[in-house]
Amino acid sequence: MLSKLPKEAVINLSPGPVTAYPRVLRALSRPAYYDYDPYFLQFYENVALKAAKALRTKEPALILQCEPAPAIEAAAASMIGRNDVVLNLASGIYGKGFGYWAQRYNKEMVEIEVAYDDAITPDAVAEAFRKRPDIKVVHLVHHETPSGTINPAHAIGKIARDHDALLLVDAVSSFGGMDVHPEDCAADIFITSPGKCLGGVPGVTLIAVSDRAWRHMESNPTAPRASMLSLLDWKDAWRKEEAFPFTPSTADINGLDATLDLYMEEGPKTVWARHALTAKACRSGIQAMGLTLWPKTDAIASPTATVVRVPDAVNEAELVTAARAELGVCISGGRGELKGQLIRIGHMGPMAEPVYGVVAVTAIGHALRKLGRKVDVGAGVEAALTAIARGSV
Amino acid sequence: MLSKLPKEAVINLSPGPVTAYPRVLRALSRPAYYDYDPYFLQFYENVALKAAKALRTKEPALILQCEPAPAIEAAAASMIGRNDVVLNLASGIYGKGFGYWAQRYNKEMVEIEVAYDDAITPDAVAEAFRKRPDIKVVHLVHHETPSGTINPAHAIGKIARDHDALLLVDAVSSFGGMDVHPEDCAADIFITSPGKCLGGVPGVTLIAVSDRAWRHMESNPTAPRASMLSLLDWKDAWRKEEAFPFTPSTADINGLDATLDLYMEEGPKTVWARHALTAKACRSGIQAMGLTLWPKTDAIASPTATVVRVPDAVNEAELVTAARAELGVCISGGRGELKGQLIRIGHMGPMAEPVYGVVAVTAIGHALRKLGRKVDVGAGVEAALTAIARGSV
Amino acid sequence: MLSKLPKEAVINLSPGPVTAYPRVLRALSRPAYYDYDPYFLQFYENVALKAAKALRTKEPALILQCEPAPAIEAAAASMIGRNDVVLNLASGIYGKGFGYWAQRYNKEMVEIEVAYDDAITPDAVAEAFRKRPDIKVVHLVHHETPSGTINPAHAIGKIARDHDALLLVDAVSSFGGMDVHPEDCAADIFITSPGKCLGGVPGVTLIAVSDRAWRHMESNPTAPRASMLSLLDWKDAWRKEEAFPFTPSTADINGLDATLDLYMEEGPKTVWARHALTAKACRSGIQAMGLTLWPKTDAIASPTATVVRVPDAVNEAELVTAARAELGVCISGGRGELKGQLIRIGHMGPMAEPVYGVVAVTAIGHALRKLGRKVDVGAGVEAALTAIARGSV
Amino acid sequence: MLSKLPKEAVINLSPGPVTAYPRVLRALSRPAYYDYDPYFLQFYENVALKAAKALRTKEPALILQCEPAPAIEAAAASMIGRNDVVLNLASGIYGKGFGYWAQRYNKEMVEIEVAYDDAITPDAVAEAFRKRPDIKVVHLVHHETPSGTINPAHAIGKIARDHDALLLVDAVSSFGGMDVHPEDCAADIFITSPGKCLGGVPGVTLIAVSDRAWRHMESNPTAPRASMLSLLDWKDAWRKEEAFPFTPSTADINGLDATLDLYMEEGPKTVWARHALTAKACRSGIQAMGLTLWPKTDAIASPTATVVRVPDAVNEAELVTAARAELGVCISGGRGELKGQLIRIGHMGPMAEPVYGVVAVTAIGHALRKLGRKVDVGAGVEAALTAIARGSV
Repeated sequence: MLSKLPKEAVINLSPGPVTAYPRVLRALSRPAYYDYDPYFLQFYENVALKAAKALRTKEPALILQCEPAPAIEAAAASMIGRNDVVLNLASGIYGKGFGYWAQRYNKEMVEIEVAYDDAITPDAVAEAFRKRPDIKVVHLVHHETPSGTINPAHAIGKIARDHDALLLVDAVSSFGGMDVHPEDCAADIFITSPGKCLGGVPGVTLIAVSDRAWRHMESNPTAPRASMLSLLDWKDAWRKEEAFPFTPSTADINGLDATLDLYMEEGPKTVWARHALTAKACRSGIQAMGLTLWPKTDAIASPTATVVRVPDAVNEAELVTAARAELGVCISGGRGELKGQLIRIGHMGPMAEPVYGVVAVTAIGHALRKLGRKVDVGAGVEAALTAIARGSV
Repeated sequence: MLSKLPKEAVINLSPGPVTAYPRVLRALSRPAYYDYDPYFLQFYENVALKAAKALRTKEPALILQCEPAPAIEAAAASMIGRNDVVLNLASGIYGKGFGYWAQRYNKEMVEIEVAYDDAITPDAVAEAFRKRPDIKVVHLVHHETPSGTINPAHAIGKIARDHDALLLVDAVSSFGGMDVHPEDCAADIFITSPGKCLGGVPGVTLIAVSDRAWRHMESNPTAPRASMLSLLDWKDAWRKEEAFPFTPSTADINGLDATLDLYMEEGPKTVWARHALTAKACRSGIQAMGLTLWPKTDAIASPTATVVRVPDAVNEAELVTAARAELGVCISGGRGELKGQLIRIGHMGPMAEPVYGVVAVTAIGHALRKLGRKVDVGAGVEAALTAIARGSV
Repeated sequence: MLSKLPKEAVINLSPGPVTAYPRVLRALSRPAYYDYDPYFLQFYENVALKAAKALRTKEPALILQCEPAPAIEAAAASMIGRNDVVLNLASGIYGKGFGYWAQRYNKEMVEIEVAYDDAITPDAVAEAFRKRPDIKVVHLVHHETPSGTINPAHAIGKIARDHDALLLVDAVSSFGGMDVHPEDCAADIFITSPGKCLGGVPGVTLIAVSDRAWRHMESNPTAPRASMLSLLDWKDAWRKEEAFPFTPSTADINGLDATLDLYMEEGPKTVWARHALTAKACRSGIQAMGLTLWPKTDAIASPTATVVRVPDAVNEAELVTAARAELGVCISGGRGELKGQLIRIGHMGPMAEPVYGVVAVTAIGHALRKLGRKVDVGAGVEAALTAIARGSV
Repeated sequence: MLSKLPKEAVINLSPGPVTAYPRVLRALSRPAYYDYDPYFLQFYENVALKAAKALRTKEPALILQCEPAPAIEAAAASMIGRNDVVLNLASGIYGKGFGYWAQRYNKEMVEIEVAYDDAITPDAVAEAFRKRPDIKVVHLVHHETPSGTINPAHAIGKIARDHDALLLVDAVSSFGGMDVHPEDCAADIFITSPGKCLGGVPGVTLIAVSDRAWRHMESNPTAPRASMLSLLDWKDAWRKEEAFPFTPSTADINGLDATLDLYMEEGPKTVWARHALTAKACRSGIQAMGLTLWPKTDAIASPTATVVRVPDAVNEAELVTAARAELGVCISGGRGELKGQLIRIGHMGPMAEPVYGVVAVTAIGHALRKLGRKVDVGAGVEAALTAIARGSV
């Protein structure tokens, strides 16, 4: 009845769920505690406080007991009221997708959409506000994981704040791998995951919520309560004196605790630097093999994932399969409407190490050759190593 | 900023999250896999198939990526349509609570409520159907964890099926600890958790869904889709060829896999027997100390948790705190409107061992004495040991 | 070919290998490092320094890559030269056993032997020195694990030092559970284990060596070198600049690291207090059931293990088996010539918690009754709880 | 006092202690059992039986509670008597080193020594027997880990057996990575480690002993007993009815169990094939970069480690340090008299994957360039990938 499991990947370079740090895996195996035992109550409070320190916010972070996609749905349901005009910024699949949730709850949605290899410009956002000064909620994906592009969160955040709009930033696969924090980009809701650049596992989501956002949710009559879609339910749950709306995912909280410790102990700047250098090495190699990066410009390419256009006449699925079968290296293909067009390599958490940038180049080059393409893998590796030798980006 | 963590409990006898089996804890620390890697796709399918075997259903189990409370909300949202009359059976806090969710989605709700130390009778259900033959969905909590009472799922299930109603059974804290399975009690939706009698951790939920229930959901226009409240999204997600609606909670799936292996390897009958004997030992001791069990009759007391009335003039919170402080034994108090009235001891998973029934008696007796009550702890322990010596219940 | 494994014990109360702290178990699963990688070299040095802090010595501790019994053989081989007169103090099986090793290497051995339920007196040691002022090496077992008795290490140490003899103290199952340290008792070689009161696993041994002892070994022409029996080989191995004589047992070093952290973080005094209180509770209960402790007087009974005489007409092996079979509680019987005469309960590491003292009483009482003896288990439990209520010993 | 730990290596390619399989690491964190508990007694017996199956011997394997170097010392002490003439075959540091131990115990030692980049020939062994038909014990290192050379164990074994001599084979770093078993090469004592090709950790040693060898040891009056140097003490210790000479290293036994399961589940032939292909890839790349392999001929190069001559004017320590510092890749330098002359890459256990052969080439090429050498790393990687594309060796 059960099928035999295939061999495990040797090296997982997907853009998430990522290979977790060994210390996170060990933390996941800590004993399971009763959630109302004094130990766990204090432990949970401490994790929320540690998250705040990592996020550089004054208030403890909200921990939702699900991975980021449903957490973003919950944020949409909680933040967007029947009177709210939403500006949705769609530069990729995740940005576009948010619009469907937004429209369940809003009064009206305005959308700026650009090609999925491009980024939203602050000018376009400013223009949108000129036309519709009644925009109340802005949604932005900072890093579009399906296409590896970065949007200018800081500039857009400033514009939103100037217009007194509330900004929701999806930083799921950028926070922890580069310099972005809720208050720096004036985000009112800032969502991130332990399972990407922090090198943990999916299962819970970190959300920083501004006072303005809490007030907006509290005055939103349709904001869910007594529901898994509710952010409000969890507002004070971090306090050891308060009850949990429902049982927290204890193992995932244990894992989250370790990701935060690792991030702060190594030092954010050091962590960001190795993400950036790994990406730089990987891209140099990819380009030296004659391949094309997906993002339109280098400036908008994320340091946490490299996305590559699949060459003409190459089948994406076969390419991904060849890298996995020949060298045991796990990379990702496209999702949704991007399926077939691109491959993706994550540089996240423990895999944000330059040597893995070289491994990615090797694996992709080898796989292409397996599919009959002529590729100068040697040149790719040389270029990657040269980038590493030049050092910090 | 961070407060020092208190000392961990020595022995966790709460009714969940329970002490997990060591093998489950180790499984939680398995490597994190990319969810679309062939290894994980096959692994996930296998876990769903193992769950089906444990649940004795033909179809693989649905695995929701959240703990049971929100999963039950999702089941309500998915199953109950605007034309559905719901019969809610409320013999405790969880049963009562479901009614609030049911009313968000239904046409009308009929409720049978009994005292929270009592159980629903099949006669009352039959009578309800006589009055309202248009009842479409029946909701039953099999084991009311907050009060330790068992409802007659098999008899009620037969009545619901005879009236062609759909039955939703919350078996979160009974399945795995006693003889109850979806098809035996004609449940159309049967919900359970790895974090109770299976000795795992919260974070995911197992749901067995009948064909009738799928058809009902599929024809329900308000059943959520593209939502964390959706059961339909996950219907085929277990198949390795299908996409996941969102990223599964990989660590929790690893843990779930181990709980199912342990349960089947030990053998369900053996597992149920030690749950029952532990409960028997614990209750014999509790009663020998002059305390009163919460459930009205022995027949409705769950083999997976012992609930005890707090004696007059004793403060529940002080009692729980004394057991924890004096002997490091973690037990639970009442929730919601039962707060202050009762204490609860779980007999679940690795703690469903007779010796822990004796430990519970010892800890409660000692704590009562600490609070100034006269208690014959010796007599309690003797009674518990006598029950154990008599052997299988 | 392979036999089915029996069910694991529910609670392991043996005097070692003990139940390890969960954090130690997790540490054992840290990645395996190349022993000459800079990370491991520094890590090993740090562990040796942490051990010194716990042992309160100036020099880093020696870590032998084997459990204590062979480590003591190595100490005998290294310390005792062909010109050395050895005073062996035998108050139990381990003390007596050392004599056989001593005689392989020494010039002559003088032995003081007392009954194995008794302790060596300082007077007897002083008298020995009077008769044989040429005694060069004294060997003392601080805690005779097979019989649960403590010898007066501090007083004996003073006498040995006054006579300029070298003292070897086996504190394998006492250090970490009570107040004893190498310099306090003037030990020149002081041997202990992570697998007893420190709550770790066997596999490596900690040895504190005085400068005098090093000088003696260095001038001993028969002291083994290039051998697993050599202490000298490992003298400087803790320094990151030095080579290891052979590959260290990396997992066990990882585990040792965690035991030392746990001990120092909780605080030695706190750790000793719970060992003492657990022993007190256990003994009060044992005696209240009409059983007799093995040690002749309370004063020489170890706080880290309770040893009980097997009542007349009771079979030791049947008693141990009954506790294991009926309640899943693992205790130990006698070893060697003590076999059949006694049972042993460890109070070590995570099991040095008063509640486990009560569990021991319960399990032994229950097992005795199973074997047909009349025992007042209730009285035993009451007495144990009374001891706990009285608090710190 | 404690120094800050340097950053951990990203990828450990040393020839041992190797990166352990994740499942082995998890096994190390299984609960610690009392060694005389029925569960552990049966478990230990099962592990010895599993080892026999892997080693293809009739009798359960001996498990010594120390890593291989001291275990080999113990084998020398146990096997070699005062009347025994020993033939020591020295083709490397380990072979040579054994001679020092042999001479502690033997009557006379005959030695065949060849250059450390060469292998012993069967002819030379036959010749030695012609000259000295009284040779009783032959010692052979199958894989000289310090130099990466393989000796012809099967041919030499046949000669020894024909002359009725006893053969001791050190297969520490070859068994599990290639086709070699005790009975195939007529070894009377065959020693291997869980910490090399089996992908486990050091701490225990597996020894297969023939009946002839047991008889020889039993009749050897100087064979140690009641000693850590004794093999005889452990002869029957695997039987659950027998006592252990001293406490087994429980965590390491847990780890060993997992290494054996993994090896047999994957299938020895599959495991050997990936060791061979990884070595092939690595060497092809090394040679394509203009570097020279240490072993004189390809035929004697081990499939489990690649050893490379350090080019003129390059400092070995600087090379190893550069690979570690620049790319986080841990490789090894020379030991003893080979120090400064070579670098070593292990292909063992989980690192015996072709992609790691490429990583080794990349890291060494990059490091050489960092030290100012001109190296065509691209050509090296291309050659390694070509070898992989050609597939099974």
